[in-house]
Amino acid sequence: MGVIQNTQIVLAERPVTDIDLKKTFKIQKVSLSDELGPNEILVKVIYISLDPAMRGWLRDVRSYIRPVRIDEVMRSADITQVIKSNNPDYKVGDIVRATCGWQEYDVLKPSDDIVKVKTFPGVSPSTYLGVLGITGLTAYFGLFEIGEIAKKGGPDCTVVVSGAAGATGSVAAQIAKHVFGCRVIGIAGSEDKCDYLTKELGLDVALNYKSKTFFKDLCAATPKLIDIFFDNTGGDILDACLRRIAFKGRIIVCGAISTYNDAVPKGPAYYSALITQRARMEGFIVFDYAKQYGKAVEDMSKWIKEGKLKSRETIISGIENTPEALVKLFNGDNTGKMLVKVAEEETKSKL
Amino acid sequence: MGVIQNTQIVLAERPVTDIDLKKTFKIQKVSLSDELGPNEILVKVIYISLDPAMRGWLRDVRSYIRPVRIDEVMRSADITQVIKSNNPDYKVGDIVRATCGWQEYDVLKPSDDIVKVKTFPGVSPSTYLGVLGITGLTAYFGLFEIGEIAKKGGPDCTVVVSGAAGATGSVAAQIAKHVFGCRVIGIAGSEDKCDYLTKELGLDVALNYKSKTFFKDLCAATPKLIDIFFDNTGGDILDACLRRIAFKGRIIVCGAISTYNDAVPKGPAYYSALITQRARMEGFIVFDYAKQYGKAVEDMSKWIKEGKLKSRETIISGIENTPEALVKLFNGDNTGKMLVKVAEEETKSKL
Repeated sequence: MGVIQNTQIVLAERPVTDIDLKKTFKIQKVSLSDELGPNEILVKVIYISLDPAMRGWLRDVRSYIRPVRIDEVMRSADITQVIKSNNPDYKVGDIVRATCGWQEYDVLKPSDDIVKVKTFPGVSPSTYLGVLGITGLTAYFGLFEIGEIAKKGGPDCTVVVSGAAGATGSVAAQIAKHVFGCRVIGIAGSEDKCDYLTKELGLDVALNYKSKTFFKDLCAATPKLIDIFFDNTGGDILDACLRRIAFKGRIIVCGAISTYNDAVPKGPAYYSALITQRARMEGFIVFDYAKQYGKAVEDMSKWIKEGKLKSRETIISGIENTPEALVKLFNGDNTGKMLVKVAEEETKSKL
Repeated sequence: MGVIQNTQIVLAERPVTDIDLKKTFKIQKVSLSDELGPNEILVKVIYISLDPAMRGWLRDVRSYIRPVRIDEVMRSADITQVIKSNNPDYKVGDIVRATCGWQEYDVLKPSDDIVKVKTFPGVSPSTYLGVLGITGLTAYFGLFEIGEIAKKGGPDCTVVVSGAAGATGSVAAQIAKHVFGCRVIGIAGSEDKCDYLTKELGLDVALNYKSKTFFKDLCAATPKLIDIFFDNTGGDILDACLRRIAFKGRIIVCGAISTYNDAVPKGPAYYSALITQRARMEGFIVFDYAKQYGKAVEDMSKWIKEGKLKSRETIISGIENTPEALVKLFNGDNTGKMLVKVAEEETKSKL
């Protein structure tokens, strides 16, 4: 029986507005026994997923999931590798997605939320935190279930995506463009991201919301108004899109990252456009569609192989940098999926 | 051929915020020839309907209907009486609902939006501007089509109605309570109105939104949260109800009277509850359901006869007081339908 030194990052104090790198989280080293109970596995964390939803988990309010407790390891989805196993279903070296949180090692029981990752050539295991993970599934189910894109689609359907260079937005925009052939306008916060959206992802138009002419540009880019708005950001961008919403338009309320650090956010002033345009704003949580994940991953794996779905990652190294990576996510410093690399994946021969 | 002196109220200047009784409207007297073209009818206005939506018609923005033009007679639905007819379908003395606007007389063509009113004992023709008019129809289609109340209903379904003592709100609340048997909480702005809601209309709970303990009271009144929120007011009440919205809750965005006088209204700060609770906010315009009006009026006439649907009117006399009546509507001075009585209905024998 051995003892492993395990670095963990726990919630120290709930932030009221912005995350405070000196106060919100606390790093600690604990000892973890590698002695396993029946069917348990010991995993080493390779990648930690950073997601806007995490800001919500820090709040002590009624939500879709319980808040992270003070002194508890911060929750996250991770890509991990099995390094010791008492479970015949998991072999040493297997890559497993699990909710271990911000730490280097964890012991998992079969009842935990564990998914064995089937890797295929050209696809990094980190893809299972991005396009083929919760972020990509969020884009997929948001568009299909809330946007009902399959009933619309085609070049006469104008789709606008905010946070379009982000992990979820980039998948939503590409599905709308390359699978359904819609006119797709991506909104992002820098000229580099806008170039990425049009030149690499092939969207029709990309708009920088920091531009002084943003609303004018949005009007010019949506001559037939907006049929589907996939919103990741909220705030002024949501208001601008409400002002351009089409008759019976759909607003997929996926996230509101621009407001998550506000104690009381500014709501969408122009929401009464919902009345005049008979439009709908609807929220969703991807977990509700868990039974359909298999079909979604199958579809998206196919689209990746066909070149319809590209992805980019912004990777920061070192578990101690995880809180800063989360802050960078809210500052919009990332293009594509934001990850922290905690350790190298080991080849099976080495293990 | 005769000439009639016709008093009209026209839009003089678009208000930016509150309606200004000295500037927004202008009263004028014009001469109207009573010579009728083929199939035309001359009507005398009996009642003018005052509706929150009117504030929107004063704005020069993209909406579901064109704005009222400067120097144009202010638009309204009216109950009128035929005083001269060149059309065999309409006899002198007939009661007709039409969109004549704020004036004493009008000449109508068959192509105008005219509905002959079938009166029945105990029901005043003014009911066709209220429960059996656009306001009642708005309550009906909002609940059925947007709230999908027929799929829910019953005592386990909690329905909250804002502006519940108003023309539309009181109908929505009574249908939810007495037709579908829901637990119904009405929100209004005075103790008198709250008494009316519980004692006369039979709602389960009435809450005064001006009370300091309003949010606490709302929490206490909605132990199982809010399944359907029929919103006529917007503003802080909408925010409070978003904070209490149930899983898969529906918000029927019918109106936002608390915000109509704001140049840029405050949006609902807590709209991200739509995400965590997988909830939906959806707007509608009653005109889209015109083909189903017949069935709705039939249902509601039946409910009136059965005592399930009661109504009250706040009637102000004199066409010159119409602008002030509109201001009173925004101040919440009315209970039930707000009307201006312009002239007495004449009995057929006198005509």
